[in-house]
Amino acid sequence: MTIANRMFSDRIADVPRSFIREILKVALDTTVISFAGGLPNRQLFPVEALKEATCKVFETQGRDVLQYAGSEGHAGLREYISTRYKEKANLDVPVDSILITNGSQQGLDLLGKTILNDNDPVVIEEPGYLGAIQAFSLYRPRFLPVPVSQEGMDPGALSAALSRNRPKLMYTVPNFQNPSGISYSEQNRRELARVLEGTDTLLIEDDPYGELRFTGCAKPSFMELVPQNTVLLGSFSKSLVPGLRLGWVVAPSELMQKLITAKQAADLHTSHFTQSIVCQFLRDNDADKHISMIRNVYGRQCRAMLDSMQRYFPSEVTYTQPEGGMFLWAELPRSMAAIDLFELAVRDKVVFVPGDPFYVRGKRHNTLRLNFSCSDVDTIELGIARLGKSVQKLMETVAEP
Amino acid sequence: MTIANRMFSDRIADVPRSFIREILKVALDTTVISFAGGLPNRQLFPVEALKEATCKVFETQGRDVLQYAGSEGHAGLREYISTRYKEKANLDVPVDSILITNGSQQGLDLLGKTILNDNDPVVIEEPGYLGAIQAFSLYRPRFLPVPVSQEGMDPGALSAALSRNRPKLMYTVPNFQNPSGISYSEQNRRELARVLEGTDTLLIEDDPYGELRFTGCAKPSFMELVPQNTVLLGSFSKSLVPGLRLGWVVAPSELMQKLITAKQAADLHTSHFTQSIVCQFLRDNDADKHISMIRNVYGRQCRAMLDSMQRYFPSEVTYTQPEGGMFLWAELPRSMAAIDLFELAVRDKVVFVPGDPFYVRGKRHNTLRLNFSCSDVDTIELGIARLGKSVQKLMETVAEP
Repeated sequence: MTIANRMFSDRIADVPRSFIREILKVALDTTVISFAGGLPNRQLFPVEALKEATCKVFETQGRDVLQYAGSEGHAGLREYISTRYKEKANLDVPVDSILITNGSQQGLDLLGKTILNDNDPVVIEEPGYLGAIQAFSLYRPRFLPVPVSQEGMDPGALSAALSRNRPKLMYTVPNFQNPSGISYSEQNRRELARVLEGTDTLLIEDDPYGELRFTGCAKPSFMELVPQNTVLLGSFSKSLVPGLRLGWVVAPSELMQKLITAKQAADLHTSHFTQSIVCQFLRDNDADKHISMIRNVYGRQCRAMLDSMQRYFPSEVTYTQPEGGMFLWAELPRSMAAIDLFELAVRDKVVFVPGDPFYVRGKRHNTLRLNFSCSDVDTIELGIARLGKSVQKLMETVAEP
Repeated sequence: MTIANRMFSDRIADVPRSFIREILKVALDTTVISFAGGLPNRQLFPVEALKEATCKVFETQGRDVLQYAGSEGHAGLREYISTRYKEKANLDVPVDSILITNGSQQGLDLLGKTILNDNDPVVIEEPGYLGAIQAFSLYRPRFLPVPVSQEGMDPGALSAALSRNRPKLMYTVPNFQNPSGISYSEQNRRELARVLEGTDTLLIEDDPYGELRFTGCAKPSFMELVPQNTVLLGSFSKSLVPGLRLGWVVAPSELMQKLITAKQAADLHTSHFTQSIVCQFLRDNDADKHISMIRNVYGRQCRAMLDSMQRYFPSEVTYTQPEGGMFLWAELPRSMAAIDLFELAVRDKVVFVPGDPFYVRGKRHNTLRLNFSCSDVDTIELGIARLGKSVQKLMETVAEP
């Protein structure tokens, strides 16, 4: 077709393709144990309770919720979110500052769209969340990766990036980060808040996993520490189900007006049908009890993974100790590349995500992401044993003269 | 807050705000008769059948459809759409060329995103659909309005625009256009197809209303006449319900790959829960019977509006004769502005949308959009009688020396 040659926008050419999607194809073989996914555990979905909530919605407000509706989102759901922030984190989040989105991924797209011009600098965690890298890439920014370690983001590196580049945006997942599983310590948060305060850089605090803490205690959010500079993203994907595609953005009023305009242009509004279902579910069920059940299961599976890694991995491999969430992050000796380990591991019938796609610069990293939310304890032990063997094989290859 | 001053992207500044939203606020007064909306008639929603379909989905595939899923959309739903194109329009639309979106509005956003660079020329109907103007505006194109009349788009004006500007995109609603209610004649379609053929301009054929024909006979689609240059958009919003937010894009494979990447970055995927509900509904119910019922009701209401306009409007006011869809379009004498009529009409307790927002150039037009899908026959007669009085008042004002 003649059209194709000059058809595409410059922006779409810059978007990295997802290696993860390719891996998921390998994982379709049921004899392969997959730690590659990023999915919540489907066994924990409250299917029956959601069905009941849905029936009620049909009976009491069927016609209303099947019609076109407001771009801001369902009033009742936004009120619930506002109230929960007050109760759980003592945060004052007015209902009008909440926009419901199709998962928090859409929040990232709308923020990129309303804020970024070509070449605008954006601070991103290194390693960082692939979905954010993809969403922002469409608006052609210049990424400024700032390293994160077990303590959080490097405040010195952030300070340098801010004064040198005056970025409009900075993206963080301070709780149980995807991909690394690390959480920013309280001290680190306070240091970063001091660096940010008074600047005109907007911090996006993406918090899909915050409720899934299975050990340690909750840390103050950036929305609490430096509210003037913070936009907060939340989601029902990890605490309830991802398939209803419901997340939200908390933003100050001037930005909110722009986000609503962008939301209208993007898809008019998020379904009030699915929003009403979640609203009804939350009215009729104990959300805390449900979340606590998820925490217990994920916590048990995480410990099983850590225990197995200690048993089956050579001591040269280090890894994070997540306090919540769904992922942990391992580091091979510097001479080894995770992508080489992947090739061996596939043959040993276990897969994971090599670290490469989580970096915006450089390739062939010695890091990897392991997911523990989707496999039971026995499978985790078996899979890590297999992976331990693959690591052993790779070390022998590398050690050869 | 210090951030706001330099925060926003250039693209968001260019998006027109929706006057329609302001009008809808006026229409909240229940004594006001509104022809301003653009909603399908909620009385015709098959609430009970959708409830049954939803229960089945929960029972048979609850866990599957509540999990993350593929960006392309639900396989069964895409197969249904492909089969229906074959049966109803003898179009060969492979399943792989269909991407499910959050309503066809999202299709517009994804097409703008993957195709448009700043200042790229885009042909748009004059008057044209506001949602498309908004969606494309975010990618900062240069709009080339080409007039549409009762016959369709002006082929001479299109030909001139194509050779002078070589636009990447051209946007059309050939069936029962929003806002004008007109349909392109078969001859007009063939002429436009000849103009397009061999160029590298991509025609977006947006067809949300195509199934809602209540008189005359179906015309060949651009997808049939000039497939190499056509991307087709469809929707369940008008033939079923809008609240599930389900539409689709039909695109050739190279473009489809880009659209899927953009869809992933925008919101990962459209809910497979809502897609499965529609799929189940379509399996268990007679879609044609349902659509035929909508056609009958809208046809009756349209005739009531036309009859009332003939009775109550001065002969100086002309209007379109829609063969389907939800809107008709009236033209006042040139000396009158629809926005002035609006001021009078609000006092007479009837509202409509003045034509201004549907033009990308010029303002204070003498045109207006009237919606007939949402009011019953008696209300239509009463509302048009009120509006006739307002028109009379305005003519007297204008006639004064």
